[in-house]
Amino acid sequence: MMKVSRLFLYCLFSLVAGLGAISVGRSDEGMWLLNDPPHALLKERHQFDLTQPWLDRAQASSVRFNSGGSGAFVSGRGLVITNHHVGADALAKLSTPSRDLLKDGFLAQRAEDELPCPDLELNVLVSIEDVTARIEEAVKAKTDAAGQNAARRSVMALIEKESLEKTGLRSDVVTLYHGGMYHLYRYRRYTEVKLAFAPESSVAGFGGDVDNFEYPRHGLDFCLFRVYDKGVPVVPGAFLRLHPPGPAEGDLVFVTGHPGSTQRLETVAKLEHRRDHLHPFTLSYLRMLEAALGQYAATSPDAARQASRELHSVANSRKALSGQYQGLLDAKLMSGKMEEEKRLQEAVTDATPWARLAAACQAHAQFQRDHALLERGFGFDSDLFGIARTIVRLSEESDKPDGDRLREYRDSNRKSLELSLYSPAPIHVPLEKVRLTATLTFLAEALGVKHPEVARLLAGRQPNRVASEVVDGSRLADVQERRRLVAGGRAAVASSTDSMIRLALLVDPAARAVRKKAEEEVEEPERQAMARVAQARFQLYGRSMAPDATFTLRLAFGVVKPYAENGQMVPVRTTVAGLFARHDLMGGSEPFHLPASWLKARDRISGDTPLNFISTADTIGGNSGSPVIDRQGRLIGVNFDRNRPGLVRNFVYTDVGARHVAVHAGAIALALRDIYGAKALLAEILD
Amino acid sequence: MMKVSRLFLYCLFSLVAGLGAISVGRSDEGMWLLNDPPHALLKERHQFDLTQPWLDRAQASSVRFNSGGSGAFVSGRGLVITNHHVGADALAKLSTPSRDLLKDGFLAQRAEDELPCPDLELNVLVSIEDVTARIEEAVKAKTDAAGQNAARRSVMALIEKESLEKTGLRSDVVTLYHGGMYHLYRYRRYTEVKLAFAPESSVAGFGGDVDNFEYPRHGLDFCLFRVYDKGVPVVPGAFLRLHPPGPAEGDLVFVTGHPGSTQRLETVAKLEHRRDHLHPFTLSYLRMLEAALGQYAATSPDAARQASRELHSVANSRKALSGQYQGLLDAKLMSGKMEEEKRLQEAVTDATPWARLAAACQAHAQFQRDHALLERGFGFDSDLFGIARTIVRLSEESDKPDGDRLREYRDSNRKSLELSLYSPAPIHVPLEKVRLTATLTFLAEALGVKHPEVARLLAGRQPNRVASEVVDGSRLADVQERRRLVAGGRAAVASSTDSMIRLALLVDPAARAVRKKAEEEVEEPERQAMARVAQARFQLYGRSMAPDATFTLRLAFGVVKPYAENGQMVPVRTTVAGLFARHDLMGGSEPFHLPASWLKARDRISGDTPLNFISTADTIGGNSGSPVIDRQGRLIGVNFDRNRPGLVRNFVYTDVGARHVAVHAGAIALALRDIYGAKALLAEILD
Repeated sequence: MMKVSRLFLYCLFSLVAGLGAISVGRSDEGMWLLNDPPHALLKERHQFDLTQPWLDRAQASSVRFNSGGSGAFVSGRGLVITNHHVGADALAKLSTPSRDLLKDGFLAQRAEDELPCPDLELNVLVSIEDVTARIEEAVKAKTDAAGQNAARRSVMALIEKESLEKTGLRSDVVTLYHGGMYHLYRYRRYTEVKLAFAPESSVAGFGGDVDNFEYPRHGLDFCLFRVYDKGVPVVPGAFLRLHPPGPAEGDLVFVTGHPGSTQRLETVAKLEHRRDHLHPFTLSYLRMLEAALGQYAATSPDAARQASRELHSVANSRKALSGQYQGLLDAKLMSGKMEEEKRLQEAVTDATPWARLAAACQAHAQFQRDHALLERGFGFDSDLFGIARTIVRLSEESDKPDGDRLREYRDSNRKSLELSLYSPAPIHVPLEKVRLTATLTFLAEALGVKHPEVARLLAGRQPNRVASEVVDGSRLADVQERRRLVAGGRAAVASSTDSMIRLALLVDPAARAVRKKAEEEVEEPERQAMARVAQARFQLYGRSMAPDATFTLRLAFGVVKPYAENGQMVPVRTTVAGLFARHDLMGGSEPFHLPASWLKARDRISGDTPLNFISTADTIGGNSGSPVIDRQGRLIGVNFDRNRPGLVRNFVYTDVGARHVAVHAGAIALALRDIYGAKALLAEILD
Repeated sequence: MMKVSRLFLYCLFSLVAGLGAISVGRSDEGMWLLNDPPHALLKERHQFDLTQPWLDRAQASSVRFNSGGSGAFVSGRGLVITNHHVGADALAKLSTPSRDLLKDGFLAQRAEDELPCPDLELNVLVSIEDVTARIEEAVKAKTDAAGQNAARRSVMALIEKESLEKTGLRSDVVTLYHGGMYHLYRYRRYTEVKLAFAPESSVAGFGGDVDNFEYPRHGLDFCLFRVYDKGVPVVPGAFLRLHPPGPAEGDLVFVTGHPGSTQRLETVAKLEHRRDHLHPFTLSYLRMLEAALGQYAATSPDAARQASRELHSVANSRKALSGQYQGLLDAKLMSGKMEEEKRLQEAVTDATPWARLAAACQAHAQFQRDHALLERGFGFDSDLFGIARTIVRLSEESDKPDGDRLREYRDSNRKSLELSLYSPAPIHVPLEKVRLTATLTFLAEALGVKHPEVARLLAGRQPNRVASEVVDGSRLADVQERRRLVAGGRAAVASSTDSMIRLALLVDPAARAVRKKAEEEVEEPERQAMARVAQARFQLYGRSMAPDATFTLRLAFGVVKPYAENGQMVPVRTTVAGLFARHDLMGGSEPFHLPASWLKARDRISGDTPLNFISTADTIGGNSGSPVIDRQGRLIGVNFDRNRPGLVRNFVYTDVGARHVAVHAGAIALALRDIYGAKALLAEILD
């Protein structure tokens, strides 16, 4: 699955950028900027004229799920299609012990039956503006990294605030080419979102962790939301009509969506840093969390319901990272990177940026565990802790000038932050204790009990006792209590006896210190060096390489194309008959057990209906739910995964075996019509 | 579950010993030596006269499962009872894709239906002899640790060989008090063992990983083997008769068995070494392996069957170690240890041994990862690799004088080694690849790709490619090929093109080097220092503390006693009705799904029949399958686990909440009679 999770984003967090697999014009590589699309490449490789109206329509139809995924408008009355696993966060939050929407699915036959989602924010891109010059101008005045970092943060916040006040649109400055370019993205922001349809998770995520990142694949991984504005369904600027015939083998297809992050332009030193430090550490963390969540989930059906979202997310990240790590161990991949780097260095005859980047990695290796555990939340995996930290920091940051704050507390981000902070989504107390016990224990394992912060935190107590005490002693499950504390500001926080607030206060000085260190000693030097590397690249290759992914809207294209594996060609699509065959072959055991709705319908639906298909288009985590569009701009599928050879695409694009996987439009039509009786919804989205 | 696994043994491997929780005469603590039993303590606390005939009978009835567990003779015709999870290794090896004995259970109604186990060795203790003086005499002549280590190894091998030649009995020199005492244990050795009865794993291991190390508990964790000698059922020196009424609350009970290892006498420095280095590293390893095995098991029912044994073993070790780690983080436990250590140091006014022990830990910390990964097999988890290494080393060691060899290749151990090496147990090729890929990857993560051994091993290839190549390129699944190589000696091994033999040869120099380092720089200095500490202890306390566990026969005793948890008393026994109730409550979902045999019998069996019970007796991993005996020497239960508070018993005995858990004799009788129709077997073992 390809949704961007918080963890996943961290795993891949890229501080800067550099070089990569130069395959200019030779492949379907590219997650292209909408304001710098590959006109010539498409014309040359696929004889396709990428017109502005086509692009405008794709942009206006494309939706970002702020929780970490993509989607598209599919009707003039605000219907949005995405993956089931992107919608799963909302489904889980709408579920109760007696209403398990993940397990049982959902259908609103009428608009009044739709379920309002507690904290879902969707974004639609309105415009892009280059603000590189203004930012570099502000930074130029400073002479040291700390000052430059502060100046950069400050001017970015200013630009965003000005834009928000002027346009009323969500305004984010995005760092491209790891520091080579800065663009201001403006979005229309939607928070009145209702659930319209979701299938059962057993068919949406058929094959579970076993089939995840594999192909052939059989998943009905889609669901439907409807977006409202002041109670009225939104009329989008454009939408895509479902085209059930889907693509033919060999067809050119497009994917628009929000790939989370890639590391193709990173230097060799940075990739080695990932291989030698970041990936092994993060993998050990993910395995620990997966074990803890899996054990809790096994204790009862309700525990399984509570844990399922995070468990899937962690397992997904673990599998993705494992594949990446295998890639980083591949001498061929690394020597390719080294050659490209050498070529670039020779062309610009200045090795200083690369030396600075290597030094930044070395610096980071010294405190990457502290950084991940104390500041990035590895050590405190708990919803209540996240809420407590946000309240603690919000109270402090709000007193500062906008430009001096930690970036996520800037005024222009306030509404999104509050949507999340005041979410009425349920807090599962036993699960909170399990997560916190597991991660506090890992904190002790990783830093050692003699580490001053660990010693202060545990104070000789066992992690399970600490976790129980802070969870039981917190009232932050109550949204009113959160509002009360925020309204009371620093004084209210300082005098709070809430045990989770106390914990967040206890660790905050050390967490802030290590963040400051990371920003000033690693991220800012990397950004500056990478800006130089990017200039060198532009000089040598022009704009023939798209920037690394940044969870902003990108256009990818590719061909529906089979590939060879173990001496056999793997076909471009799977079918509904194949889904039933796999259920039978696995004896209906988990995670291959089809729901009753499908088993009942088996004899009256067409087994030949295509279920999933593949193409060479360039996608990555975050592209989950991305529309797959044909030349005519019709919706022919919904992207939901890539296969195992595609896992190294973080570092290098390849079309040798690597494919993304999409739910076929025909399967969507069949499911809505013949399985779920959602005839009105189907009529609304049909071509 | 309490079986000693290879991993588990490593996790706990104790190089030396020292102090601990002094609770002399104040509790039911103690895993007592059969030749130094607690006569006075039993008399004083429980008014029980421990007679020599009682002891002799317990000893002659008790059986060690060399694969890592305990058991007891229960008939005059060689029937042995143990835990299902101790027998599971044999059950798995006897299973095929079409005959899953683990899942479906087994019953031989007649002797000729019993199934011969491929490589099961049982031992029955015959005699114990103190050989401390002879060993210390031999060591005394040497002046450096390397020489002393060699001399010690050599004289131990000599003593064992002499004994074997003189008596024909398996002869093992056992290190007690981590170096304070050496005893020669002589065993009768049985290798003609047949499976007579096993229930389905779903009722034997009811509750799976969720209920493991928990109480209340509902497991029918027993099975029956019959031991033969030259085709005739063995007539044991003694056996225990099943007494279905079992114990009453408050009764004194005994447990004889083979506890694997404890660390109660270790110094504070060593416990800190475990807390700061060994446990975190081993936990990260176990979680990795559990994730890999779990993912493989999910791919098909047959994969699940192949992986189930190791998966359970790894999950069990992970849960045990997690509990121990929580204990090591407990300041109260550690400060108790510090106080005891101080008392001992003051009494003997010589801190040198403790300083030497701390230095040995520091030395070990520098290369513990190399040691675990390269020598102890963490990096190469594969049956084929184990076979290859054994063949490689056997060919080299056999050319040396007996006393100079790596200890496991001594002549006196040759028969046991060959039983295992030439086992016809099936090798599962896909599982081999999964295990080796996972552990080679972990090797790279833990040591880094720049580590010379990792670089040589991988040579720029991805671990999954290396694993596939060496597994596919090996013919060691064929027992004849193993015999051929061993017969051909060094020349045959050197010229072998078998890829797994090549891999074992490739890593052997580094593995041997790190083992030598560990033996000479850590284990020997620890042994010597711990001998001094032990003398100090004897001087101060006499023999009032039993030595730490060593997988040799011990006697424990305790009382069937409830305990308080969350303000409620937890009863001493569970019932068959409780088993069905738990199945119902969990909706029959895994791992709480009862087999058809039980569901069918539900209405015609007595729900009041006790199923499991607890006592305060002192047990640890390795005690799985131990008989629980009453004052009259009757079999009232079969020990199979301890509860969560019991997990810290590695470091300190407590009866506050800590209990071992046993299958009640009444449940065994009910199951054989009313569920499985095994009337002849029941009649054979009944009181």
